[in-house]
Amino acid sequence: MAQKPSIPKGTRDFGPAEMAGRNYIFDTVRSVFRTYGYMPIETPSMENLGTLLGKYGDEGDKLLFRILNSGDAFAGIDVEAFRTADGGLNSKALSLKVCEKGLRYDLTVPFARFVVQHQNELAFPFKRYQIQPVWRADRPQKGRYREFYQCDADVIGSKSLLNELELLQIVDRVFAIFGIRVLIKVNNRKVLAGLAEISGFPDKVVDITVAIDKIDKIGLEAVEAEMREKGLSDEAVAVIEPVLQLTGSAAGKIAAMRRLMSGQSASGIVSENGLKGLDELEELFSLVESAGISSEMEIDLSLARGLNYYTGAIFEVKAKDFEIGSICGGGRYDDLTGIFGLPGMSGVGISFGADRIYDVLKGLDKFPPAVKSSTRVLFANMGDAEVRYIIPVVRALRESGVSCEIFTDNVKLKKQFDYADRKSIPFISITGGDEAENGLVNLKNLSTGEQKSFSKDDLEGIIGFIS
Amino acid sequence: MAQKPSIPKGTRDFGPAEMAGRNYIFDTVRSVFRTYGYMPIETPSMENLGTLLGKYGDEGDKLLFRILNSGDAFAGIDVEAFRTADGGLNSKALSLKVCEKGLRYDLTVPFARFVVQHQNELAFPFKRYQIQPVWRADRPQKGRYREFYQCDADVIGSKSLLNELELLQIVDRVFAIFGIRVLIKVNNRKVLAGLAEISGFPDKVVDITVAIDKIDKIGLEAVEAEMREKGLSDEAVAVIEPVLQLTGSAAGKIAAMRRLMSGQSASGIVSENGLKGLDELEELFSLVESAGISSEMEIDLSLARGLNYYTGAIFEVKAKDFEIGSICGGGRYDDLTGIFGLPGMSGVGISFGADRIYDVLKGLDKFPPAVKSSTRVLFANMGDAEVRYIIPVVRALRESGVSCEIFTDNVKLKKQFDYADRKSIPFISITGGDEAENGLVNLKNLSTGEQKSFSKDDLEGIIGFIS
Repeated sequence: MAQKPSIPKGTRDFGPAEMAGRNYIFDTVRSVFRTYGYMPIETPSMENLGTLLGKYGDEGDKLLFRILNSGDAFAGIDVEAFRTADGGLNSKALSLKVCEKGLRYDLTVPFARFVVQHQNELAFPFKRYQIQPVWRADRPQKGRYREFYQCDADVIGSKSLLNELELLQIVDRVFAIFGIRVLIKVNNRKVLAGLAEISGFPDKVVDITVAIDKIDKIGLEAVEAEMREKGLSDEAVAVIEPVLQLTGSAAGKIAAMRRLMSGQSASGIVSENGLKGLDELEELFSLVESAGISSEMEIDLSLARGLNYYTGAIFEVKAKDFEIGSICGGGRYDDLTGIFGLPGMSGVGISFGADRIYDVLKGLDKFPPAVKSSTRVLFANMGDAEVRYIIPVVRALRESGVSCEIFTDNVKLKKQFDYADRKSIPFISITGGDEAENGLVNLKNLSTGEQKSFSKDDLEGIIGFIS
Repeated sequence: MAQKPSIPKGTRDFGPAEMAGRNYIFDTVRSVFRTYGYMPIETPSMENLGTLLGKYGDEGDKLLFRILNSGDAFAGIDVEAFRTADGGLNSKALSLKVCEKGLRYDLTVPFARFVVQHQNELAFPFKRYQIQPVWRADRPQKGRYREFYQCDADVIGSKSLLNELELLQIVDRVFAIFGIRVLIKVNNRKVLAGLAEISGFPDKVVDITVAIDKIDKIGLEAVEAEMREKGLSDEAVAVIEPVLQLTGSAAGKIAAMRRLMSGQSASGIVSENGLKGLDELEELFSLVESAGISSEMEIDLSLARGLNYYTGAIFEVKAKDFEIGSICGGGRYDDLTGIFGLPGMSGVGISFGADRIYDVLKGLDKFPPAVKSSTRVLFANMGDAEVRYIIPVVRALRESGVSCEIFTDNVKLKKQFDYADRKSIPFISITGGDEAENGLVNLKNLSTGEQKSFSKDDLEGIIGFIS
């Protein structure tokens, strides 16, 4: 009996139209990465569980897809060793026994593993990009998938802020090509650490950043309430409050923050950390000025970003004309590879959100027309002799890079026109016996109705007509 | 404690050099597919096990990688229901209970599933290509991996031999671009069925094809011995023997076979099936003549190809100047989608073996030089002011599509030259304060030693020098 076909929840098929859009995104990002000297790598879809476990917190461990060692994985297992009090099975222990591998959860941990494993083959600073799917056993919901592509560029082995600059230039260039106006928000983790220090609660940096990260959603008062709830004193909140209300230029914000970090806040505490972060922000904005970035850029002191390994600059990109979460983000980390035995390698990276960028391009109708069609000309099938006549013409066009098709079956023209229509093919050639006898090729523009005949050897004329 | 990093057996990391070669292969094949109107699709890495099980034989079922439903998959499982006589666990039953999904084993079954699931959105004949990894829990060994890419093009919904022709043209074109001389071997499954019929053992077609498929390896006598072992009579073997010894042109082989299939063999049996297969071969070779394929092509009546779903033309491609298995193959099938509820859809497809093609290109040194280097120019870091001076020049080059890098750290020139050397960067720019003062950019060709200075605005001159 025939099975009704379906795919697992949270996964997707991509048909030709979606693929065209997705490839446009990946090809664009890839081509910009390359002009900056970032080179591609790929890592296996499955990593040893030891490589993945413990890298994403307890929650992340639960979201790893584990792969059964083999269909025979349970043979020879001693049941009693895995029995629970209620007579069931101990899931955690048994799954570790029968699954040694898991699907990668992101591209960052495999990249760190790659750098350590191949350190003797690599030239540092090592600049790599990587565009591959990742898998997460999240509860599927709108816009959240169990398989999705990440599109990352990282440089490791250099502390220079030129790397941050170049990543921002990449962002600027990519979205300029896409025709998407963006706002690039920048912050620095050291400034956030400094803020915790001058509030008198240096240990609460995570609580403070988590709270202020929500300011756009819940407002200033609720953020302050949350900080108090986490144990901050009224005095501490009073130190932080003015920072969250800073507006204006990057230079103005930096100057105001510099006063606070050098002991002029209500607490009078000086933060070397915070001052260092401000120096970095200042230098980065100065570099940006030299480089001439056309996207709008601002310092957002409430920008925190979830991942805890960031230690310096952090950035996030929003589309200005389309309501959606951040479409790109990244930051600097000081020690990504230490866990695999190579400590002290500083790096900085960026990740483009392909699914969201797709939605923005579609929503703003910014996909270039060429992305929407792929075959330029359909050569109608007028019979065996006519097809044989046309084959060399089609071959020459293809070798010139023009996508064309011969309708393979000799059916009614109506059906062939329908095919051209469904595939959005813009030109059709109805070359019959008369044309063949006179060495001609007929071409018709399906949107304007214009028709023209060309000598079959006039490749230039034909290409001109259909371009 | 630091973990020593490693990856699962049978999987691979691809560094920048390998990726450059692999991308060259995929990009070339993709660009040729596109000129023939084949469009890309992608399917999820994981399919429901019901989609995969039973499609690849018992052996294939064992080679599927199964994915644990969740880290909690064993919670609430009644142990006793899965206990075996020896007190262990019933692997087959339990793994079906805790694993609902598996990693795709090939691209063909997911393609069939895709076509049925999306049949109302597709224009038929539907031509798709698909380049994605597949996974097999095979014992890892040299040249056999547990994760590898397949690179397939199929057209479904047309019986026309024009499709076979176009796939052969694609093969011809791809290997012409690669500069690999190939031999394309063609056969037809109906001819193999006809051979079994005229031998008097129509039911033994699989045994016969399996045996004659080995003739290159084990020789004629061993093939005959194997056929006898499988129950064929001496008379049957005597009918088959002359077929295996046919040499010469396609036309000659077809004529000889046509005599045998029309009752002039020792058995006197007529095979309509075999004659139909010969008609198809004859038409295909006639089309090939119209189209002008430059690769060598021959009919190989011992060509069988393992996959049992082929029903018409089958083909296989060998490199002429490099010893390796087949680097490309395919064939026609009459009913790929019936199992998913859409019967009677005939199609034909082809698959390029990327790993082997990589080995051939490398072995014959046929990778184009451009594939080997990616960054064209390294701009040495001569200090902060010099870097700021050079940034706009680098930006302009990048926006013209030139890959370049600024060395991000201000370290000794020796170290910067080493970096250029390790990355095979062919040009370096050592633009210091003097050049900056005079509005110049210095460039050096690292292989010839030639040096030249350009005005910083002379983009054309700079690009000319480094191209």
